[in-house]
Amino acid sequence: MGKANFTSDDHIYLQVADGIEKMIAGEILRIGDKLPSVRVLSEEYGISMGTAFQAYYHLEGKGLIEARPKSGYYVRFNHRRFPAVPQMLQPEPVTTDVTVQEMVMRILKSTASDNVTNFALASPAIELLPTAKLNKSVVHALRNGKDHCIGYENTEGNPELRKQIARLAFNWGGKVSPEEVIVTTGCMEAIALSLRAVTKPGDTVAVESPAYFGIYQVIENLGLKVVEISSDPATGPDLPCLEQAIRDLRVKAVILVPNFNNPAGSCMPDEHKKKLVEIITQHNIPLIEDDIYGELYFGRHRPKTCKYYDTKGLVIHCSSLSKSLAPGYRIGWVLPGQYLEQVSSLKQMHTISSPTLTQVAVAHFLSIGRYEYHLKNLRKALHTQSLRYIQGIMQYFPEDTRISRPQGGFVLWVELNPKVDTYELCTEALKHQISIAPGRIFSNSCNYSNYMRIGYGSPWNDKVEKGLKTLGNLVKKMMNQ
Amino acid sequence: MGKANFTSDDHIYLQVADGIEKMIAGEILRIGDKLPSVRVLSEEYGISMGTAFQAYYHLEGKGLIEARPKSGYYVRFNHRRFPAVPQMLQPEPVTTDVTVQEMVMRILKSTASDNVTNFALASPAIELLPTAKLNKSVVHALRNGKDHCIGYENTEGNPELRKQIARLAFNWGGKVSPEEVIVTTGCMEAIALSLRAVTKPGDTVAVESPAYFGIYQVIENLGLKVVEISSDPATGPDLPCLEQAIRDLRVKAVILVPNFNNPAGSCMPDEHKKKLVEIITQHNIPLIEDDIYGELYFGRHRPKTCKYYDTKGLVIHCSSLSKSLAPGYRIGWVLPGQYLEQVSSLKQMHTISSPTLTQVAVAHFLSIGRYEYHLKNLRKALHTQSLRYIQGIMQYFPEDTRISRPQGGFVLWVELNPKVDTYELCTEALKHQISIAPGRIFSNSCNYSNYMRIGYGSPWNDKVEKGLKTLGNLVKKMMNQ
Repeated sequence: MGKANFTSDDHIYLQVADGIEKMIAGEILRIGDKLPSVRVLSEEYGISMGTAFQAYYHLEGKGLIEARPKSGYYVRFNHRRFPAVPQMLQPEPVTTDVTVQEMVMRILKSTASDNVTNFALASPAIELLPTAKLNKSVVHALRNGKDHCIGYENTEGNPELRKQIARLAFNWGGKVSPEEVIVTTGCMEAIALSLRAVTKPGDTVAVESPAYFGIYQVIENLGLKVVEISSDPATGPDLPCLEQAIRDLRVKAVILVPNFNNPAGSCMPDEHKKKLVEIITQHNIPLIEDDIYGELYFGRHRPKTCKYYDTKGLVIHCSSLSKSLAPGYRIGWVLPGQYLEQVSSLKQMHTISSPTLTQVAVAHFLSIGRYEYHLKNLRKALHTQSLRYIQGIMQYFPEDTRISRPQGGFVLWVELNPKVDTYELCTEALKHQISIAPGRIFSNSCNYSNYMRIGYGSPWNDKVEKGLKTLGNLVKKMMNQ
Repeated sequence: MGKANFTSDDHIYLQVADGIEKMIAGEILRIGDKLPSVRVLSEEYGISMGTAFQAYYHLEGKGLIEARPKSGYYVRFNHRRFPAVPQMLQPEPVTTDVTVQEMVMRILKSTASDNVTNFALASPAIELLPTAKLNKSVVHALRNGKDHCIGYENTEGNPELRKQIARLAFNWGGKVSPEEVIVTTGCMEAIALSLRAVTKPGDTVAVESPAYFGIYQVIENLGLKVVEISSDPATGPDLPCLEQAIRDLRVKAVILVPNFNNPAGSCMPDEHKKKLVEIITQHNIPLIEDDIYGELYFGRHRPKTCKYYDTKGLVIHCSSLSKSLAPGYRIGWVLPGQYLEQVSSLKQMHTISSPTLTQVAVAHFLSIGRYEYHLKNLRKALHTQSLRYIQGIMQYFPEDTRISRPQGGFVLWVELNPKVDTYELCTEALKHQISIAPGRIFSNSCNYSNYMRIGYGSPWNDKVEKGLKTLGNLVKKMMNQ
């Protein structure tokens, strides 16, 4: 639909647009704010709906606002004043005085208190989750589940839940049968079982850098070696670099978060995913795809998965509901492709089966369509929160701060002045009851000592704003030391 | 209290006792049947309570009946006609055409159907479990748990549940603080985490023979070597043999089920436990103690644990509620002693935390005393069932059949004529919709090919009796081939 279609007076829509632009510039309307609907705008200004639409269309063209599907118009970034994104680092050996495991355990312990302003976690605030409706599904399961859910569940998972998980694959265009699904106790069990199924101690595994610390921990614990692949903050792993590593270092498996990587927030373009699957297929090695954030996209469409391009069953797709529905229910899954039998055996050996009650409850919740409905709200909330947090960091942090621009998920990857050590910052911040995740825990070989991960899972409020302000002041203080 | 205390007429009590003895001999009263109370007996026979008591006392002295605490009198074994117990085998290398893993997966799959008469599992029938009361605790947790139990639980487990588990240690005389408890997803996760905490691939672990197949599977999967210690059907592992293995084969850890071993049913006398702890302390190696059946004793007292005798934190005590309360809730735990930090790290790496809801629900169930109450009933039921099943096997199987005499737990260990291969029997039985656990899956190096495990977790009924009769006929047929 082009401008030529509109018959309203050019002058009027430009005046209206100009007024809105001034409100944005003056931060009366702030990044992430919802604009009035076209109807309300036409009534407020006494203009036709067509003119109101044209005003928004003009602002959208200037990159000041954006339309979100089935939701309306929102104030978006003004890219001209938006900070730079973090830089890509080349992995190289580093030594640190504190082990990653020590840092992780310390941070996890710190986040247990309710008083802490918690930027360290990559998970949703409880108030964003459909607690009451999920409770109803639990009661339904108690009443209607076989033996009231007190008996053992199948090792591979509850049959109805496996069906519902298979159905979720429709969202990324996949055709999955329930028999291909194995339910796990969260995504980490899915990844750990997958790694065990395809490697033996001493093998080398390729991982993008930066990556979620839990992945390094489990790899190390399984006696595997890591080769880190540098990763672009927007498009994810450097594929030529990966291919070279596979060829030169006898990589036995690759493990990646293609959609909304934690912590970088990168999302591999679909053509990269296709190319990646071609590479691993050519070398006949498995790819463990952690798609835990895939459903939490801010754009119009769910990004595809690598599994979508897989024809040989080499892609092992892992995910969970811990980030999108119920962290404490520990419902994850794996689509192990050609490694189905190995993963199933390992699951049976190590935990027999996952708990019955939570599986039956979640299967019910999914089957009546409540999950899809909830996701729509959650995506909107997270998108708005991401913009608010970016704005907050821009406001309170030094000018040379670089911030990622995630198109989904929970986290911002923030690069500070090289003088700032974020592990020190983390220690200082805890004295102010604020927790962050320092960059060093996201790599074995890159330093990332002036990077940090900021989770925006909690809705914006005064406490959050005050937390970012305090953090910003601490950073400024450290820069001047 | 001796006979001399009774003033009633000798002749009368002997007549009454004689009548009861005839009913037992004629199988009008069968093994495991509850006898009338002393009061009812006195009313029925028109005798004094003292005479009635004396009649029971007389029969008890003859080994025909037994008193159970707070429950009354029951018909017990007549040892004069009771079959021999299974023989102890010396571990030696064997080769088989089917792998244990294949057998296990096949049997597990077969037991999923409701039509199958299931002697293959070592777990309680659902009807023996307090489903309705546990449901109430779930609803209580949904209403009163923090954030309605939707959020992550601590890696080490729900604080109230850890407190309740620590309290359970009172039952075996232990003093455990909640901080020493780590909640796991069932006992298998507890064992797997413990093994990983104290060994590295290539290490040797000592295991009693026969032992639960899951233990061999997880040991093999972790790249560990097994040395099997021969075990007495009544008193458990041969300690001099174990000590020699520790010395000669550089054993890095020992793993045992001291109380009501699965499948043999043996229970280590407390002095053996004490001696065992002395041995491992002297060699400074950890003992992983699987006490999953410890609460399901038929006698007057709960047997002690090895942990009770441990002063150095070398005993890693593992257990769960899967066999006694709710298999599908997957609530297990480990008291890791000096390995607390390692086990906690591993738990965090591999599953982050166990599900919140089931932990909070079970903590409530335990805190209001319902678990102890339920256990009392469950013990009585299992004791009676064990006797009924023994009687059934005696009735329908060939005379040379040997049967264990468990004093707790769920299983009978049955030795058949050497001509009978129980894996073949298992295959034949499945054609009749009956499942058993063949002996070969309980060892890597002993053959046990003419042994089988029969679970008596299901209450005695016509279907069970018919199942044992069919099994007995199949055995007779195989002996005559």
